[in-house]
Amino acid sequence: MDHIPERKTVDIILDDFLAGKKHIAERTRVAHLLELFADFLANGERIRTALTVLGWQAAGGHGDSDRVARVAAALEMFHAFALIHDDLMDESDTRRGRPTLHRALAERAEPGRAEHSGNKFALLLGDLAFTWSDELLHTADLTAQQLRAVLPLIVEMRSEVLAGQYLDLRAAGELTDDVDATMSVNRYKTAKYTVERPLHIGAALAGAGPEAMAGFSAYALPLGEASRLRDDLLGVYGDVGDTGKSHLDDLRSGKNTTLLALALRAARPAQAARLRTLLGDPLLDETGAAEVRAVCTATGARRTVERMIDDRRRQALRALDTAPFDAGATTALKDLAHTATRRSA
Amino acid sequence: MDHIPERKTVDIILDDFLAGKKHIAERTRVAHLLELFADFLANGERIRTALTVLGWQAAGGHGDSDRVARVAAALEMFHAFALIHDDLMDESDTRRGRPTLHRALAERAEPGRAEHSGNKFALLLGDLAFTWSDELLHTADLTAQQLRAVLPLIVEMRSEVLAGQYLDLRAAGELTDDVDATMSVNRYKTAKYTVERPLHIGAALAGAGPEAMAGFSAYALPLGEASRLRDDLLGVYGDVGDTGKSHLDDLRSGKNTTLLALALRAARPAQAARLRTLLGDPLLDETGAAEVRAVCTATGARRTVERMIDDRRRQALRALDTAPFDAGATTALKDLAHTATRRSA
Repeated sequence: MDHIPERKTVDIILDDFLAGKKHIAERTRVAHLLELFADFLANGERIRTALTVLGWQAAGGHGDSDRVARVAAALEMFHAFALIHDDLMDESDTRRGRPTLHRALAERAEPGRAEHSGNKFALLLGDLAFTWSDELLHTADLTAQQLRAVLPLIVEMRSEVLAGQYLDLRAAGELTDDVDATMSVNRYKTAKYTVERPLHIGAALAGAGPEAMAGFSAYALPLGEASRLRDDLLGVYGDVGDTGKSHLDDLRSGKNTTLLALALRAARPAQAARLRTLLGDPLLDETGAAEVRAVCTATGARRTVERMIDDRRRQALRALDTAPFDAGATTALKDLAHTATRRSA
Repeated sequence: MDHIPERKTVDIILDDFLAGKKHIAERTRVAHLLELFADFLANGERIRTALTVLGWQAAGGHGDSDRVARVAAALEMFHAFALIHDDLMDESDTRRGRPTLHRALAERAEPGRAEHSGNKFALLLGDLAFTWSDELLHTADLTAQQLRAVLPLIVEMRSEVLAGQYLDLRAAGELTDDVDATMSVNRYKTAKYTVERPLHIGAALAGAGPEAMAGFSAYALPLGEASRLRDDLLGVYGDVGDTGKSHLDDLRSGKNTTLLALALRAARPAQAARLRTLLGDPLLDETGAAEVRAVCTATGARRTVERMIDDRRRQALRALDTAPFDAGATTALKDLAHTATRRSA
């Protein structure tokens, strides 16, 4: 996979781009905000970068990958927007083991209205990231044909993640045993947004046709679902070292997951009542978390989720057998199907 | 000006566009949000529409104006985003004489966390409007040349309004006598964002060259500044019927304006102390407002702002004398220079 630009290439594009904003930042005395933002952006996992490049390569892209890297940078920038606004809407305190942007900004604000101040500047930085993502895209020097292929996918991707976020918000604060509803959020926010669309966008840059596009979907959707289900398990059974965040966070915020919906559905009344008491309790401690784990295991929810993950991984791998993809990229996509679904992160 | 698509054309595009989102809205049970949003959007003034079309026509555009109307619709959609997020950041209760979107959403939310609920759904609807603005733009069927001309202007426009909002936020809550700072916000949020860029974008669709672009700037920047200064005056001296919002709102929120900065700068210590007591007081009443007016008049701030408006209107009109614009559009631009700066709204 010698054509794959490393994470470094995309990081350099993002650094250069933000450096180009410094003069405005200084003129508007916004430099400290920009530094915080750069820091947030630098801390990303670059999953979209890897998938955009893999999609491009799998669809036969080769040679100069500058445009691909620039489009990947645009996706990373968009993702920074999505995370910043998600954290605001979810009132999350931590992200990737560090304070979320609105919390970091609140810490730097003058006391009194620090929380509102953190929220409003985070909102604005999110908006800027959205704008900048467009700017990166529009300056990627794409051909007219590439633009025509990529822009509708970008529009779809954005609508999908916002629809997923809407479903997520709607469900928040109210524990559900509606497994389909949790799988719907999973599909929009992870399977489509994180896996399918970056592959599609990379493939579109290489001029992929409908057959290849369908192949990517057949691989990406089950894999994305499996990966999110794996994260749901890690959120309850994993330890902080695996996930970069305490599993207490998700449990305390009463986040709906497929695992918990399955547990609630299969629980006896007494177990269900305990789950409803424990989940969403902002003071939940390790003893409470252990009790949640015990119910998830006893109800068979854990086992069901593990089986769902295995089924979906197999489905994703099978899709690769018939897809018309480049051999090197296929190997990489297979590897990814394993690493994204294995039991520890 | 028979080529100018009416407001109605753009409204139809926006209605059709939102109707196209209905199936997603129903699938995600978001229909009531979409209705509120459609209502908000329908209530817009369509200043950008008029200016985009005028820019196009002034630069020699003629014939089929469908693409122009669609780009204008994209700008209106973007503006809906900007207003929704501005109102959130400013914690405003009213907009165009009606509850702001986050307040309207909070009213419909279940009690308990209604405020947060209103805020988060308004944030998300703002994000959707941003995405939809891109979608309208990307489906406007622009030629490759039009896209190349328009996209960088859109990117600039977005960065400028966010920079203006940042300056506005930074200044909020702390009364300033820094006249330059207030004029800077004015320039970004009104002169460039509301007047110059829509004209530029319309002109770019007609293939305008650098000379015409410079002509639009020479007209738009002083006119935009004058129009905002007029609004500052109306915010203190106008009545509700003129502005659609109570002038008490701006005074109570302690909004920095050039008028108040001039008054503070020219005030005697006792007057300045009164202004600092009255402005930003959430309980300010009509008696207090009358006192603010008296100080603005006594310090000569009102007179200075009126002179600034007159100077800028003259400058804008002068710019039209030498600009290489279509005669019919020039007449319309002259009319606009008068209506946008006259003493009652």
